[in-house]
Amino acid sequence: MANRGRTWRARRRARGDVEQKLEELAARLRAAEDQLDILRLLNRYGPLVDSGSAAEAADLWVAGGGYDFTGVTGDGTRVEAPRGLAALYQTDVHTDLVATGVAHLTARPHITLHGETADAVGYSLVIRREDDHWYLWRAAINHWALARTADGWRITERYNRVLDGSLESRATMRRILADP
Amino acid sequence: MANRGRTWRARRRARGDVEQKLEELAARLRAAEDQLDILRLLNRYGPLVDSGSAAEAADLWVAGGGYDFTGVTGDGTRVEAPRGLAALYQTDVHTDLVATGVAHLTARPHITLHGETADAVGYSLVIRREDDHWYLWRAAINHWALARTADGWRITERYNRVLDGSLESRATMRRILADP
Amino acid sequence: MANRGRTWRARRRARGDVEQKLEELAARLRAAEDQLDILRLLNRYGPLVDSGSAAEAADLWVAGGGYDFTGVTGDGTRVEAPRGLAALYQTDVHTDLVATGVAHLTARPHITLHGETADAVGYSLVIRREDDHWYLWRAAINHWALARTADGWRITERYNRVLDGSLESRATMRRILADP
Repeated sequence: MANRGRTWRARRRARGDVEQKLEELAARLRAAEDQLDILRLLNRYGPLVDSGSAAEAADLWVAGGGYDFTGVTGDGTRVEAPRGLAALYQTDVHTDLVATGVAHLTARPHITLHGETADAVGYSLVIRREDDHWYLWRAAINHWALARTADGWRITERYNRVLDGSLESRATMRRILADP
Repeated sequence: MANRGRTWRARRRARGDVEQKLEELAARLRAAEDQLDILRLLNRYGPLVDSGSAAEAADLWVAGGGYDFTGVTGDGTRVEAPRGLAALYQTDVHTDLVATGVAHLTARPHITLHGETADAVGYSLVIRREDDHWYLWRAAINHWALARTADGWRITERYNRVLDGSLESRATMRRILADP
Repeated sequence: MANRGRTWRARRRARGDVEQKLEELAARLRAAEDQLDILRLLNRYGPLVDSGSAAEAADLWVAGGGYDFTGVTGDGTRVEAPRGLAALYQTDVHTDLVATGVAHLTARPHITLHGETADAVGYSLVIRREDDHWYLWRAAINHWALARTADGWRITERYNRVLDGSLESRATMRRILADP
């Protein structure tokens, strides 16, 4: 009986061990999936805004989420999702971009996961057509604050500053130092 | 005995549970690997065509696969793999690009997996040298149809339209709406 | 008894099977994580050098690691980490870039894993501001040799050649052929 008790305890231990390994693998896999899912979300932005899909682009944000950006000069403006953002992508300036040919490129950002929220820091480019070639109309650094929702990852706040050497643009780049 | 029967059934249930969790993890991991493998395949394109490795570039497609593209103007032309594509990368236009300095950049596309096939939608740039700087000779949106083969993922069809505001270019961008 | 012995062996086999499957999944997951971790390391480079974070940028390399690069013309120079590299990012040329507005973009490279070391081959761009737009000041092909350290993945050697059609630049692109 002592023997059988030991065997049973050994088996329970082995099973507990397997359960723990399964949980560890699932947690690691979840972290890899989160990174791929966030990249996927951010990769939807370009084709949506560049094809004039205003409402679908605004839905990459949570309702009440914001996009704070500068033009080449001037202070930031915060536009709110979904209505403000959808309206932004229906302005004459934007529909003219769509009609001429444009790509809003999101370079692979640096992602930091915090369980149910995440941060991403990286560059974005706006590429426009002019006659028979294309040029960089805009280059910027971005900080996206993200949250896991019932519908998957969504943007809560996007902060964007053009690359003009400003303190704000460099402070945004340095956000990656918070996560070495 | 009734007791031992219960134990045995409990154990079988626990083991079945573990098997099921293992299968679920394996399926999720496979989806992450598929995304990484497809990115890897598409990332081979640039260095191959830009170094004049014509045959190796053509082998990113399945035999009989196609590449349908436009120049800055004009309708699309479909070139077939591997012979037509290898010939394309040996034309004077292309070997002149290679000799001058060029990068065919594939921006991270939006990938949708369907088990043994997949779709990817994203931007591509052709960057050329001119004197002491580089410029965007071409910017386009692409739809890649992909298939898992015995040799890994391969392109079955690539559809490419320059960013000139055309209906075709915008419809290609909107393909990502099929997979929210 | 013979019956119980068979059951025990079957159970041991089933458990061994589970252990093996767990190990296989862990190894596959590790390969996916390694790719994501290497991309994460290389994605830190831009925001660090573009914000003038010289020491932190140099720490992406192992101590004694090197960066061998060319300007638009001329032979390669190898600068050593961490001191030489930190000094490079504090030169007038570099601090002028930071003050004007710049992005060192690392396009997604082609990664090959070899257990404790890895290779990555891919393009990099330096985007500079000039008045109200940005332009490609530099476009290059890179080969990064990487090693897993106690602090995670680090660069051991980075070899960089501008895209000017040189034999060296094309040989660097062709390094991906070593891993089909």
